Amino acid sequence: MDVTLQQVQRSVWWGWGDPANAAPLPVHARRMLDERLGARSSTTNHPPVQLDSIEVPESRVGDRLRSALIDAVGAEHLLDSAADRILRAGGKSYPDLVRVRTGHLPYVPDAVALPSTHREVADVVAACVAHDAAVVPFGGGTSVVAGLTATGEQRAVVSLDLRRLAGLIRLDEHDHTATFHAGTMAIDAETALRARGFTLGHFPQSYQQASLGGFVATRSAGQSSSGYGRIDDMVDGVRGVTPTGEFEFGSRSPASAAGPRLLDVMVGSEGALGVLTEVTLRVVEAPQVTRHTAVAFPDFDSAATALRELVQQLGHDQQPDVTRVSDAVETEVSLGLAGRSGKALQRYLAVRGLEAPCLTILLWHDATDERAKHRQRRAQQILKRNGAVTLPAKIARGWEHGRFSAPYLRDELITRGVFVETLETATHWSNIAAVHRRVGGAIADALDAGGTPGVVQCHISHVYPSGASLYFTYLAAEADDALDQWQTVKTAASEAIVAAGATITHHHAVGRDHRRYLADEIGEIGVRMLRALKNELDPGDTMNPCVLIPDTTSQKVPTSTGATTEAPS
Amino acid sequence: MDVTLQQVQRSVWWGWGDPANAAPLPVHARRMLDERLGARSSTTNHPPVQLDSIEVPESRVGDRLRSALIDAVGAEHLLDSAADRILRAGGKSYPDLVRVRTGHLPYVPDAVALPSTHREVADVVAACVAHDAAVVPFGGGTSVVAGLTATGEQRAVVSLDLRRLAGLIRLDEHDHTATFHAGTMAIDAETALRARGFTLGHFPQSYQQASLGGFVATRSAGQSSSGYGRIDDMVDGVRGVTPTGEFEFGSRSPASAAGPRLLDVMVGSEGALGVLTEVTLRVVEAPQVTRHTAVAFPDFDSAATALRELVQQLGHDQQPDVTRVSDAVETEVSLGLAGRSGKALQRYLAVRGLEAPCLTILLWHDATDERAKHRQRRAQQILKRNGAVTLPAKIARGWEHGRFSAPYLRDELITRGVFVETLETATHWSNIAAVHRRVGGAIADALDAGGTPGVVQCHISHVYPSGASLYFTYLAAEADDALDQWQTVKTAASEAIVAAGATITHHHAVGRDHRRYLADEIGEIGVRMLRALKNELDPGDTMNPCVLIPDTTSQKVPTSTGATTEAPS
Repeated sequence: MDVTLQQVQRSVWWGWGDPANAAPLPVHARRMLDERLGARSSTTNHPPVQLDSIEVPESRVGDRLRSALIDAVGAEHLLDSAADRILRAGGKSYPDLVRVRTGHLPYVPDAVALPSTHREVADVVAACVAHDAAVVPFGGGTSVVAGLTATGEQRAVVSLDLRRLAGLIRLDEHDHTATFHAGTMAIDAETALRARGFTLGHFPQSYQQASLGGFVATRSAGQSSSGYGRIDDMVDGVRGVTPTGEFEFGSRSPASAAGPRLLDVMVGSEGALGVLTEVTLRVVEAPQVTRHTAVAFPDFDSAATALRELVQQLGHDQQPDVTRVSDAVETEVSLGLAGRSGKALQRYLAVRGLEAPCLTILLWHDATDERAKHRQRRAQQILKRNGAVTLPAKIARGWEHGRFSAPYLRDELITRGVFVETLETATHWSNIAAVHRRVGGAIADALDAGGTPGVVQCHISHVYPSGASLYFTYLAAEADDALDQWQTVKTAASEAIVAAGATITHHHAVGRDHRRYLADEIGEIGVRMLRALKNELDPGDTMNPCVLIPDTTSQKVPTSTGATTEAPS
Repeated sequence: MDVTLQQVQRSVWWGWGDPANAAPLPVHARRMLDERLGARSSTTNHPPVQLDSIEVPESRVGDRLRSALIDAVGAEHLLDSAADRILRAGGKSYPDLVRVRTGHLPYVPDAVALPSTHREVADVVAACVAHDAAVVPFGGGTSVVAGLTATGEQRAVVSLDLRRLAGLIRLDEHDHTATFHAGTMAIDAETALRARGFTLGHFPQSYQQASLGGFVATRSAGQSSSGYGRIDDMVDGVRGVTPTGEFEFGSRSPASAAGPRLLDVMVGSEGALGVLTEVTLRVVEAPQVTRHTAVAFPDFDSAATALRELVQQLGHDQQPDVTRVSDAVETEVSLGLAGRSGKALQRYLAVRGLEAPCLTILLWHDATDERAKHRQRRAQQILKRNGAVTLPAKIARGWEHGRFSAPYLRDELITRGVFVETLETATHWSNIAAVHRRVGGAIADALDAGGTPGVVQCHISHVYPSGASLYFTYLAAEADDALDQWQTVKTAASEAIVAAGATITHHHAVGRDHRRYLADEIGEIGVRMLRALKNELDPGDTMNPCVLIPDTTSQKVPTSTGATTEAPS
C-alpha cells in the first residue's frame, strides 16, 4: 500500500497541497479579498474533513472481475479501501475539491488497479471488457474538467492508476527523443532528462503533480509553449491499449504522408478510445541561461499587439520562451496581493500615464547569455514600439519562482469560503479583444446575477502566429450552493465562448464539463467521426465513459455538479 | 471548353512539360547516360502519341446521373469527350506517363464535372451517391502514387475537377492566414500572396502544376520545409464535403485541446473520406533576401550529421530554409550532367581529398541581409566542423534556378527510353544511414536482377529535430515491359522501406501504390480506424475508391500497373 501513501504525500486528497505547508494568506491579501468579494470571504466555509468521515458506496466489483484483475496485476496492486477509492474519485476542479471537502461524492471508483507494464494494462482492460466493467485511466489526477469521473455509470468502475507504469525507457541523445512509460510523473521525467542535459520544456501549472500520459491524452500546453510548443508538437510516438487491440503510432519517422495522422487521434483522446502506455517525446538540450523581462502596457490591446508581433516577426525560436500578459484586473489583483511593493509599482506606472497597466512577463531560455540577450534585445524593440514601460526584471523572476503556486493558493481560498475557478480558450488574433470582453463579461454578469459580484481577471500565456489563448480566473464569495454557483458561471462562460467563435478549451481538455459544447466546435460530422472511432475501438464503451464525446440522444444524466445535461456515451 | 484548353496548355497530357519548350539533352549528358545505362538509352522508345489515337471505353454515365450532374454544375461544365477524360485518367507517375504514351489506359473516368462553388461540389457528390457512381477528386493532377486512378471500378467514375473552384477568398494580414478555394493552383496562390507581401513558403517539385487542396489532401512537403514547415504545419482550417455531410475544422482557434485534432484526419485523407473545398493556411511575410551556400562533404554520414546539428542546435527558424544533401552518386550524376564545369569541380574536390563528395545546397530567406548573414554564419560553423569544403555560391543559385526542372527532364528521358522514377521515405536520424543503404541496395539489386543495371541516387531534403527524409531517384535502360520493370523495383524498394522501419512515404502520399504497405505502418488497428471513418463518412465508398485504405479481404484487383494486389476499399 506504499503507493497509496506516496500519493497521499504527493497530492493531498482534499486539494492540491500539503496542509502542513500551507502558508496563511497575508493580512493585506485577506483585507483585499474582503473588500472585493464581500465579508463572507473571511469566514471558513470549507475546512478539510477527515478522510475516514467520507462515506463511499459498496464496491460493485464482483468475484469474477476481482479474480481477473488480481490475475492481471497481483492482489497487492488491486486496491479497494475507502481511502484508495476516494483518492481516485475525481480531479482538481473546483467542484471536485468542494465535493470532497463536503464529503458527498457522486462518483467513487469501485476498485483501483495498479499495473506496472503495458501487458498488465492490456490485461486489466481485457478483464473489464470480459466482465462488463468500465475503466477510468488515472495519471496524476489533475483534471479540472471532470475527466476522471464516471458519475452515473451503472457498471463497476475500475480506476486504472498508471503510477507504477513509470520511468524513462530510453533517451536517444542522437535523435533527441525520449520514450517514457505513460504514468511517469512530469517532474520525474524532467529530473531524468536534466541529468542527461536535456529538457522537455513542458511546464503547465499542473507540472508538480501531472503525468506524461495525462499531458498527451489531454493535449496539454505548458507555460513555455511559446518557445517549446504544446505537448502535441512534442509527441513523436505513442503506444497503448484499446479494448479491441493495441496501437503504436509514429515510431517510424518524424514526419510522414502516409494518410491521416492517426497519432493525432490518440493525442487528446482522453482515455475514451484507449489508454496510453508509452509516449515518445522530442527533447531539446537544456538551456544554460534564462533572461527575464517585465514590462507594463497601457492597455490589453497594445499588449496583445506586441505579443502578436513577437511571434509573427521573430518566429517560434526567437520569440520569448515564456510570454504572459495579464489584463488590467489581473495586474491590479497581482499588485494588490504583493502588498507594499505592488502599491509602489502602481504609483510608478500611474506617473507614467498607465492608469490600468497590463503586467507582462517574458522569459528567454538559451544556451548562452549572448544569444539570450540578442533575442531579448530584438524583442524589446517590439515591446517599446507598442508602448511598454520597462519594470524591474525581479518581477519576472518573482513570477517564475511562484509559477506553480496558484493551486496551493486556491486550497487556501476555498478553505476561506472563496469561490475560485479558472477556464480558458483560444482564438485568432483578430478575435482576441472580442473574446476577452464577451467571455469576461459573461462571467461577471453571471456572478452578479447570482448575488455574488466578483473579480474576473484574464491573461494571455500561449501565443501562435495566428492567435493566442485567453485564461480567465474568477473569484467571488461562495454562494449557499457552491456547485450550483459554479455551474451557472461555467455555463454562461462556455456559451459565451461558443458564441464568440473561440475554442471551448485551449489546454484543459474536454472531459465531462465541455463535451456538450464540442459539437458546436467540430460539428455534427465531427461528433460522428469520434463516435465511429469509439465504436470501432471500444464498442462496449469500456473506456472512460462520459467524457469527450457529446451524446446526441436526449437522455439526461448527472454532470459533475449533479445537474443533468446529457447521457454518457 | 476553355478550361480544358488551359489545362492542355499548362500540363501536356503525355508528360509534364510543353514539348514545344523541351530542350534536347546535351551531347555530354546523352553520352553519360549511354555509358551508365547501356546503349538502349539512346533509342527513342516512347515518343508522345497523338491524343486522338488513344481509345477510351464508352462512358458509363447513365441518363439520370448525367441529368443530376448537369443540374449540379451546368451542362457546359460536364465534360465527356475522349480528350477531357484522358486528361484526368491518371497523375504523373512513371507508369502513368508510360501508359498514356503507349495509348493503353486501364482507367479513364466516365465524365468530368467542374464545379465552381462549395455548394456545387456538394451537389456533384450527392448526385454520385444517389446514382451509385464513384468520385475521384482531381486538383493539379500531379499524383505520383496512383492517387487518381480508379482502375477496376465497376461503377461510373466522375472526375471531380476542382480547377474552377479557385482563388483567394480572404487574406487576413493581421492573423497571418489566407483562405483559398481548394482548387487554387499553387502558383496562382503564391502570386496572390506575393502581391500583398506574403508567401506560403511551400514549393514542392510539383509547384508549377499542383493545387492547394491537393497539397493538403496528400500531406505535401515543399523544398523549403526546413524553414517553412510541411503543409500540415501550415493548415489552420479546412472545409469540405463528404457523402454524408459537410465539415469545417480548425476555424475557431490556432490551437485547441478540444479532443483529437480532426483537422489532421482530413489532412492526408486523399479524397477517400471527402473532398476539400476550402483551405485556410498560415502565411508569413515574404522574405526580402536569399543567401546561398554550396558545400561538399567527404561522405554522406558527415553531411547527415551536419544537417542534424543544424536543426537540433539552431532550431526551426534559424537553420537554413532549404537544406539539401546529395549522396555521392547523385553528386556524381549532377556534376556529370553539368559537363565541363562539373568535371572541374570534381578535380577541385579530389585535390582536397574528397573522392566521393556529397554536394550540399543551403538557402536562407530573411527580411534583411544582415539577419540572413547572421544565420548563415552560425550554420557555417557547424558545416566546417563536419568537414564541409566550401564551393562557389553560384552552384546553390544554379540549383535554385533549376529546382522545378526535374519533371521536364524526366519527359525527355522517357522519350529516350530511359526508365526513370523517384520514391521517398523518412526515418529517425539514427536510422538514416541504414535506410539509405538498404533501400538504395534493394533498388539496385532489383534493377540488376532484371538485367537493367542502373543508377540509384539519393538526397536528404527535409529535416526535423528527430530525423529526415530520403529521396531516391533511379534510372536504367527501359526493359521490354516497362510497367513490370517499374513494379518489380517499386515492390523491392517498398519492402525494404518497411523492413528498415521507415515510413512508406514522406510526402508523396499513399494513393494506390503504397496502400498495401500502410498496414505495416499503422497496424491492424490503424487500418480499422481509417475504415471506421470511411464507413461513417462514405458508407457507399463513393469517394476515391482504391486509394489510401488497405483492404484486408483477400479479393484481388489490378493495381496501377495492371498487376493484381488487393481489392478496392
